[in-house]
Amino acid sequence: MRQHKLSLCKEHYLEWLPEQTERFIQKYNMFTHKDKVLVAVSGGKDSLTLWEILWKSGYVADGLYINLGIDGQTKYSEMSRQIVLDFARERALRFTVVDVEEEFRETVPQIAARTLRGKAKPCSVCGLVKRHIMNRVARDAGYNILATGHNLDDEAAALFGNTLSWAKGYLIRQNPVLESIHPGVIKKVKPFFRFYERETAAYAVLSRITYVYDECPYSIGSKTIYYKGLLNQLEADRPGAKLHFFLAFLKAKKEGLFAQPPEKCGLELKTCPVCGQPTTVPDTCAFCRMMDKVKSPTVKG
Amino acid sequence: MRQHKLSLCKEHYLEWLPEQTERFIQKYNMFTHKDKVLVAVSGGKDSLTLWEILWKSGYVADGLYINLGIDGQTKYSEMSRQIVLDFARERALRFTVVDVEEEFRETVPQIAARTLRGKAKPCSVCGLVKRHIMNRVARDAGYNILATGHNLDDEAAALFGNTLSWAKGYLIRQNPVLESIHPGVIKKVKPFFRFYERETAAYAVLSRITYVYDECPYSIGSKTIYYKGLLNQLEADRPGAKLHFFLAFLKAKKEGLFAQPPEKCGLELKTCPVCGQPTTVPDTCAFCRMMDKVKSPTVKG
Repeated sequence: MRQHKLSLCKEHYLEWLPEQTERFIQKYNMFTHKDKVLVAVSGGKDSLTLWEILWKSGYVADGLYINLGIDGQTKYSEMSRQIVLDFARERALRFTVVDVEEEFRETVPQIAARTLRGKAKPCSVCGLVKRHIMNRVARDAGYNILATGHNLDDEAAALFGNTLSWAKGYLIRQNPVLESIHPGVIKKVKPFFRFYERETAAYAVLSRITYVYDECPYSIGSKTIYYKGLLNQLEADRPGAKLHFFLAFLKAKKEGLFAQPPEKCGLELKTCPVCGQPTTVPDTCAFCRMMDKVKSPTVKG
Repeated sequence: MRQHKLSLCKEHYLEWLPEQTERFIQKYNMFTHKDKVLVAVSGGKDSLTLWEILWKSGYVADGLYINLGIDGQTKYSEMSRQIVLDFARERALRFTVVDVEEEFRETVPQIAARTLRGKAKPCSVCGLVKRHIMNRVARDAGYNILATGHNLDDEAAALFGNTLSWAKGYLIRQNPVLESIHPGVIKKVKPFFRFYERETAAYAVLSRITYVYDECPYSIGSKTIYYKGLLNQLEADRPGAKLHFFLAFLKAKKEGLFAQPPEKCGLELKTCPVCGQPTTVPDTCAFCRMMDKVKSPTVKG
């Protein structure tokens, strides 16, 4: 780990990563052993590693797998689902599965094809669907923390994109800890946000976690992957650049760089009359409006 | 010009660039025909092109050449000085030359070698010296505007660097127009900040301006050149990205992204008792402190 000027053997590496995770959870006031944590698991190395570490560290950490119905040649969702199920059963972990097609009669790519009229990738629709379901499951099942496996590469790439376009709202809100700002929204945390992707990957491999190697087929050619490439180049030339970029951002924000605090952000949150989740518009939220157009409206609030 | 989806022949190009310059001068309230403008000229394509365009547009625009004493193998300063002098004489333009070595007994690299003890490049010392001299000459000779030839590539690279490290003060203050915030400081403007480097270069070549092709020998391997390379890569993949990055920054700032307005910036400016220029410290300014250590102190205020 060039950015830390640290080299570890297998045994110590498998201790180091959970210790660091624990340190970040405490340092950033993410949650304690009294909280009920729902871990969003995709079947990839980050989310499964996070789930494993939280479980081994004695947290109440159950899983949520959302079957998005992204299949195609690689059978991406089907394979991911099987891997998550096997992972949980081997460790006797509790988890919930939500199947988008079963619940909404359409898969994510089908919803996207209909609502976007095939013009764009389903990524924005997918994000909207996942956020809605994660919040709903957490709220209905009494979890007060939602944890995702986003690593430093994910966060730095998102920040890089938001900075290139100076996306005000996203810059103000981007944070590894998002407090609940509405009763319908659960506190969100990213305990791995300071780990490089190669660090979580190394843990997954060394601890023999079986995970999905393939990326989502829709991620090919995405902006995020493009920004990750640029940042990797920067990192190769200046080890630690990616971590410094993200931590300096958090520091500047903490020191009051931006005019608005994230919880204000110029928006007064309202409550969607259909699902009860927060929305910035005075009527039905974006998710429910999108779902309202599904052939048979069976939206569950 | 892919970013504008525009192609022009030589004749129209030589009209287009000055017209655009005039548009930017007005749009950003830089100056009018009533102002007295001092153009800082290095001998490079940007500053000479700027001087030529301002002169042809009928502005009161005199030149200032600072001989930094950067010579070495390429005789950089000597060559630049000759080119600026020839340029001005051919057009019968008024100009001032300040010779750092004559005035301060040491060249910029010598001051840097002494004060930085040879540890770093002279770039920060050079910036400090140039800012001091530009302000002093403008103030003493009654100019109320200081214009520099910085182009979009320069500004975007500076912004990129400031963003990677989230340098709060620089982010808040970076602007193509810096109003005078102290009686000892002249309003600074960058009329070319929206032109790509290749656009000013094309004008210089087409209008047969003789300019220094070499970069400053100390710029080799600099961060700025590194950032320019990364941004060029981004621009090649997404034409217009560089312009969008910088304009979106100005827009977000205008819309109140940052907590502090540039003129505040958390600093109360004081006046240096030696030179009368503003300083953030309560005593002698950074420039005068640096010069105080020169063998024979002959600092002119």
